[in-house]
Amino acid sequence: MFELLKPDPQPKARLGRLTPAHGVMDPPVFMPVGTQGSVKALDPRELLEMGTQIILGNTYHLNIRPGMEIIRAAGGLHKFINWNLPILTDSGGFQVFSLAKIRKIKPHGVEFRSHLDGSLLFLGPKEAMGIQRELGSDIAMVFDECPPHTATPKEIHGAVERTIRWAAECREQPRATGQLVFGIAQGGVNVALRERCAKELVEMAFDGYAIGGVSVGEPEPEMMRAVELAEPFLPTDKPRYAMGLGTPAQLVEMVARGVDMFDCVLPTRVARNGTAFTRNGTVSIKGGMFKSDFRPIEEDCDCFACKHFTRAYLRHLLNVGEILGLRMVSVHNSHIYIKLMTEIRSHIAAGTFADFRREFIANYRPSKKIMLARAAVKER
Amino acid sequence: MFELLKPDPQPKARLGRLTPAHGVMDPPVFMPVGTQGSVKALDPRELLEMGTQIILGNTYHLNIRPGMEIIRAAGGLHKFINWNLPILTDSGGFQVFSLAKIRKIKPHGVEFRSHLDGSLLFLGPKEAMGIQRELGSDIAMVFDECPPHTATPKEIHGAVERTIRWAAECREQPRATGQLVFGIAQGGVNVALRERCAKELVEMAFDGYAIGGVSVGEPEPEMMRAVELAEPFLPTDKPRYAMGLGTPAQLVEMVARGVDMFDCVLPTRVARNGTAFTRNGTVSIKGGMFKSDFRPIEEDCDCFACKHFTRAYLRHLLNVGEILGLRMVSVHNSHIYIKLMTEIRSHIAAGTFADFRREFIANYRPSKKIMLARAAVKER
Repeated sequence: MFELLKPDPQPKARLGRLTPAHGVMDPPVFMPVGTQGSVKALDPRELLEMGTQIILGNTYHLNIRPGMEIIRAAGGLHKFINWNLPILTDSGGFQVFSLAKIRKIKPHGVEFRSHLDGSLLFLGPKEAMGIQRELGSDIAMVFDECPPHTATPKEIHGAVERTIRWAAECREQPRATGQLVFGIAQGGVNVALRERCAKELVEMAFDGYAIGGVSVGEPEPEMMRAVELAEPFLPTDKPRYAMGLGTPAQLVEMVARGVDMFDCVLPTRVARNGTAFTRNGTVSIKGGMFKSDFRPIEEDCDCFACKHFTRAYLRHLLNVGEILGLRMVSVHNSHIYIKLMTEIRSHIAAGTFADFRREFIANYRPSKKIMLARAAVKER
Repeated sequence: MFELLKPDPQPKARLGRLTPAHGVMDPPVFMPVGTQGSVKALDPRELLEMGTQIILGNTYHLNIRPGMEIIRAAGGLHKFINWNLPILTDSGGFQVFSLAKIRKIKPHGVEFRSHLDGSLLFLGPKEAMGIQRELGSDIAMVFDECPPHTATPKEIHGAVERTIRWAAECREQPRATGQLVFGIAQGGVNVALRERCAKELVEMAFDGYAIGGVSVGEPEPEMMRAVELAEPFLPTDKPRYAMGLGTPAQLVEMVARGVDMFDCVLPTRVARNGTAFTRNGTVSIKGGMFKSDFRPIEEDCDCFACKHFTRAYLRHLLNVGEILGLRMVSVHNSHIYIKLMTEIRSHIAAGTFADFRREFIANYRPSKKIMLARAAVKER
């Protein structure tokens, strides 16, 4: 199911191959986020054209709308949304703890009110796995508790204990045919808790391991530290997934720390405000400097947007509110993330990843605004 | 330039061929509306796939944003928006009289304030033709005065006099290479004024003739009557264009009255509210009846949306506000309009248009809501 093709101990970048039920994935891989059954503003053809190998769906959101009755009748999520390649579904844990209104943590899950209509709902290991089984995702995530980065040590401790207990309960649930299940390691930046949580999960022998509790508003050094604390305890022969990350530069740094899989709403979210990713950082296409700039967003980019449209035209579209503008920046940004992974894989294969990493980070100018957008987790 | 391939006196449906600078058009033809340089929510590939032969642009809107300096620097409208087939540009007259804030009608045009920032602008025959020359459209429209359907006989008389005088002035303006210019016949439902305006314009020998003053909020019988009053005075060897129309059924009726060209914002505008066109009328895809309906919008439709997605999925997307939902209904609706014209052409060629018309109208249920949407001319 997962084959480690080329580990590179210094840095820890890895080349692998994962073969879930609906296809093949080549980690390091970026997974565009289709929270509600659609990667925002994109259609499946555009996703395939940019080389997408897997997309995300979300248990919490899909369970509320359209609801499982409809997805069951459609024959599962792949058929409902017409996506024939792999899908990873998040368990809903993250949304229950970040989006839902009132909640009561119980031994076997969480009672909460829908962020939409206030209706009382319950989600726990059994429910989350049941929904993911019906969604028929290739990779299901365990139901975990993801505390905010402002949580007290005691709160983080409680979250880790529940995450471990709930992971064991998830492990026992029936799965869809061929469905893989990943554990999620929590523990904040507490050395002992990260170790304990990772080890306990590994003990349960999941098909892969996610590092959770990152991208919850913490500063970048804490994010890196959380990954560094958990990674040594994860088996090398299973894929590792850092949840909800990040900027292109952060992804390069995470690969260097031994992470294989990523998902992030950034490329499509900032696109809807007219912000484009480039190799050198982000740029607001709405800017006046582009009004007569007839170059594509990036001159060497072969995405649909860059092959067809200029900065000047996209700036015009964004400024007059034409949907094609945000569509095309969404295409470009998602393409950039996918292609960055392709480039990373080539460098790992050629043994030149360390040089690539140094050069990429040196040329990438992080933007404070983008880091804040990342921290705005509501839509995730 | 225009070749009348098959006139059919009873009804007056015509088959023609028009060869403007950037390609070939086969009237009767529907022209998707790209007011601000983009057919709303669609990209050029989607337009080409559905068989679009020509799109519209708008002088008033494009002159305000992005402004002519930018379009000139891009090398004209085709290059700016990356559309290599024909473009027809409206002169801006309609928008000046319907959108602009304060205005003063002068002998050689209209002084008005931008609907966006209130800046004082002037548009008349010379300016409108100058802008269209720089846009480089295949077909330019004369600068006319389009009175609302509530106008008094005196107002309509004044509008006709100005429209004739301004048409003569437009006729004398220099054009882009190969650019065709169409006159616009006004006159409301006044028999004498429609005749006078049409005859005066024909005297000036334009490349084609539009029937204006329709789709301005009038009831359908008045719209039909306006066309019937103008048409007999238009030469059979030039294309006729009914501006801003209409529903599929209205287009069939207009073809039966000898009209060759159409444009309308309806297919994309109502799509953004989740309303789809079918052969039998409109349907709200958001409706609860579609929640587990896994058929395409129309079962025999070969548009990109119907080939890939179900009503249930599109309903979900529209209800959760995913852009892909309105995108796909926009694709379907525009496709339906284009394909209706293909079907009409086949029937005219086969001599079966009269039967087709009877059957189509009998099966089409007009919707009051859609008629009202048509009357909401602001976005046109």
